[in-house]
Amino acid sequence: MLEKDKLPFGQEIVDKIIADNGERPFYLYDEEGIRSNIKRLQKAFAWCSEYKNFYAVKACPNTRILDIMHEENSGADCSSLPELLMSDAVGISGENIMFTSNETPAHEFVKAHELGAIINFDDITHIDYYKKEVGALPKIACCRFNPGKAKEGNAIIGSPLEAKYGLTYEQLIQAYSSLKEYGVKRFGLHTMVASNELTDSYFVETARILFEAVLEISEKIGIEFEFINIGGGIGIPYKPEDKPVDLDKVGQGIKSEYERLIVPSGKKLKIFSEMGRMITGDAGYLVTKVLHEKSIYKSYKGVDASMADLMRPGMYGAYHHVVVLGKEAAEKTEKYDIVGSLCENCDKFAIDRMLPKIEIGDYLVIRDAGAHGHAMGFNYNAKLRPAEYLMHADGAFDKIRRAQTITDYFATLEDSRLNGL
Amino acid sequence: MLEKDKLPFGQEIVDKIIADNGERPFYLYDEEGIRSNIKRLQKAFAWCSEYKNFYAVKACPNTRILDIMHEENSGADCSSLPELLMSDAVGISGENIMFTSNETPAHEFVKAHELGAIINFDDITHIDYYKKEVGALPKIACCRFNPGKAKEGNAIIGSPLEAKYGLTYEQLIQAYSSLKEYGVKRFGLHTMVASNELTDSYFVETARILFEAVLEISEKIGIEFEFINIGGGIGIPYKPEDKPVDLDKVGQGIKSEYERLIVPSGKKLKIFSEMGRMITGDAGYLVTKVLHEKSIYKSYKGVDASMADLMRPGMYGAYHHVVVLGKEAAEKTEKYDIVGSLCENCDKFAIDRMLPKIEIGDYLVIRDAGAHGHAMGFNYNAKLRPAEYLMHADGAFDKIRRAQTITDYFATLEDSRLNGL
Repeated sequence: MLEKDKLPFGQEIVDKIIADNGERPFYLYDEEGIRSNIKRLQKAFAWCSEYKNFYAVKACPNTRILDIMHEENSGADCSSLPELLMSDAVGISGENIMFTSNETPAHEFVKAHELGAIINFDDITHIDYYKKEVGALPKIACCRFNPGKAKEGNAIIGSPLEAKYGLTYEQLIQAYSSLKEYGVKRFGLHTMVASNELTDSYFVETARILFEAVLEISEKIGIEFEFINIGGGIGIPYKPEDKPVDLDKVGQGIKSEYERLIVPSGKKLKIFSEMGRMITGDAGYLVTKVLHEKSIYKSYKGVDASMADLMRPGMYGAYHHVVVLGKEAAEKTEKYDIVGSLCENCDKFAIDRMLPKIEIGDYLVIRDAGAHGHAMGFNYNAKLRPAEYLMHADGAFDKIRRAQTITDYFATLEDSRLNGL
Repeated sequence: MLEKDKLPFGQEIVDKIIADNGERPFYLYDEEGIRSNIKRLQKAFAWCSEYKNFYAVKACPNTRILDIMHEENSGADCSSLPELLMSDAVGISGENIMFTSNETPAHEFVKAHELGAIINFDDITHIDYYKKEVGALPKIACCRFNPGKAKEGNAIIGSPLEAKYGLTYEQLIQAYSSLKEYGVKRFGLHTMVASNELTDSYFVETARILFEAVLEISEKIGIEFEFINIGGGIGIPYKPEDKPVDLDKVGQGIKSEYERLIVPSGKKLKIFSEMGRMITGDAGYLVTKVLHEKSIYKSYKGVDASMADLMRPGMYGAYHHVVVLGKEAAEKTEKYDIVGSLCENCDKFAIDRMLPKIEIGDYLVIRDAGAHGHAMGFNYNAKLRPAEYLMHADGAFDKIRRAQTITDYFATLEDSRLNGL
């Protein structure tokens, strides 16, 4: 039996949730799994005088998930106004918010400033834009470095040369000079050129690039940096054969570079990150019921969830492990396409997947859906968004988002003919 | 000046809409353009004793757009419960609704039955499922044919052999036999194996396949078909160099096949279709303002819309023509990436696009966004969905969907800490 086929819950909780939610797909998050992921990450950086992960809110924008981050001393990496408001509402405030956005509208900078967030500038022009629109400078300013040819990107973000993000090295010099001239006294440096990356050394190299840039820029401009932000990008092993990132190896690798580069300079740097996927990704499950079976040129099982609930397989061809609830240990004798009901042929959770024999009425658990899962769902084909549940260590659970209703879906039409439908 | 650079509206209406909507991106639909597309399609099939297009509601699910369909004697092709309710609410009812869905949950069949919709079965097993769950059979039943090797698919839908849709030929025989045995008296036959297809002959061949199948199945089983449904799939010329489908040629080509195959048999068939994209696609515009400009390894213009508003470029790499409002005739001297603010590097409306010189504050009009545009948007990065406006022939306009608010976005969290934010 594969490790990936073992689930931290069984039929009982599914039955209870269906009794509460009605017969429709739902997301289930494992609180213990989330806390354990945060702790593993913190442990890897325990050597650092001050390490903090700013959870990428976009990965799972739910206040009850953010409560866990708050309790575990994580910050929040926000990319938009509603994310800023959510973070502040749960008590993640001030410099526990990293505002990392791009093509940012003025009112979002205004709110981030009001909250005292760390501002992570994506472009050199944003500094004057911020100054003009906000009427002030941030207390603590960070710039996103796009290393161009100096670093390879990966498949999701692409080559840094083609990436819309960040400043060139020459622009960093100009940017920090301006910020210094404008009276800003506290600085950070950020980069992120990969997403869902599983190579340990990648993150060590990222930190090295940032350490080196910090040393060079400090010297050139005469400013002191308070932190580096190594961004997000630690992937999770979606496939059974994938090897997870060795967090301790990453932490120790970065420590070595810190000791080699920063310690001799007499400087002290905090290390920040913006991990989202590795915190909640493997702790989230999409649970869906098999409604139909179809046998034409291939063998299909049709479920009540669709690509509208989880976009990654349809959008990226991403692999998500599928477990048949109650048949975790059964032999995988059948080859199926697991399909949703969207009128898009890419709406397939699995293609040619070997699975135990599936019956109508079985529940399928689609794994690793806790990051960029519910968050990326849509209403295409007028599909309603699913509920989210949080399972606690004792097996109790809370509904942390109700399912969308038809009334919600119709709300922006403001058409009285739809009232009460 | 390219035909694609000419717009049916100017700065004046944009200013008025911004005054109403606030400074944020919006969709604008051209009512006259929609009506003219419907009429062109109807004209192409004027030879047919009864032709009807069932507008694919999923392409632009807005009751005010459906009102136009109703006024122009179109039906509605629905894929889910909310789409059924919207169609019925605007007066498109009974057999003017084609319910074409897949992996359909029971309650959606129940509602479709209650509305007297034409039921388009996607699978042979759905007939007994319907009978059991609805407790009756549809008055008029259609099956979706998946011709397998007998027909090539296209890039969007893929090879019919890999497509999750429809019944095999052998299953069609079984399905209509069952339906006949169960007492159903009225029948249709449907197929759809391509989406956004620009080859005229493709649709003629689709009709031929259906005509031949109708003749064979009628004879084998002893039933009479009332209609064929050639599905949707007529594409639009997104790129300036694309040639639109010649609708008259399609109509005449299908007429020839009808006269060759159906007329000699003494039968009479209605012809139905489920076009969405060719009805509203080129009549929809996403209007967005340039907020930022960025020059790193490439030259970027950052706009206030994002992939959350229009998914096609980011998801499919789809080309959408971009016009700089007020600079329609200006020389295209600059090469830009036009990017949105989503934290996804694929959030680019245009890559390496030659355009007139763009200044901050310019409005960009992203063309051909009237189908699968707003409908496929999402809330990723906590982006709020944009408003939709309908422009009438006299230049007046109506707001037909308000922009989503932060309150809407927070609604399903039911977290009192977010109240009033």
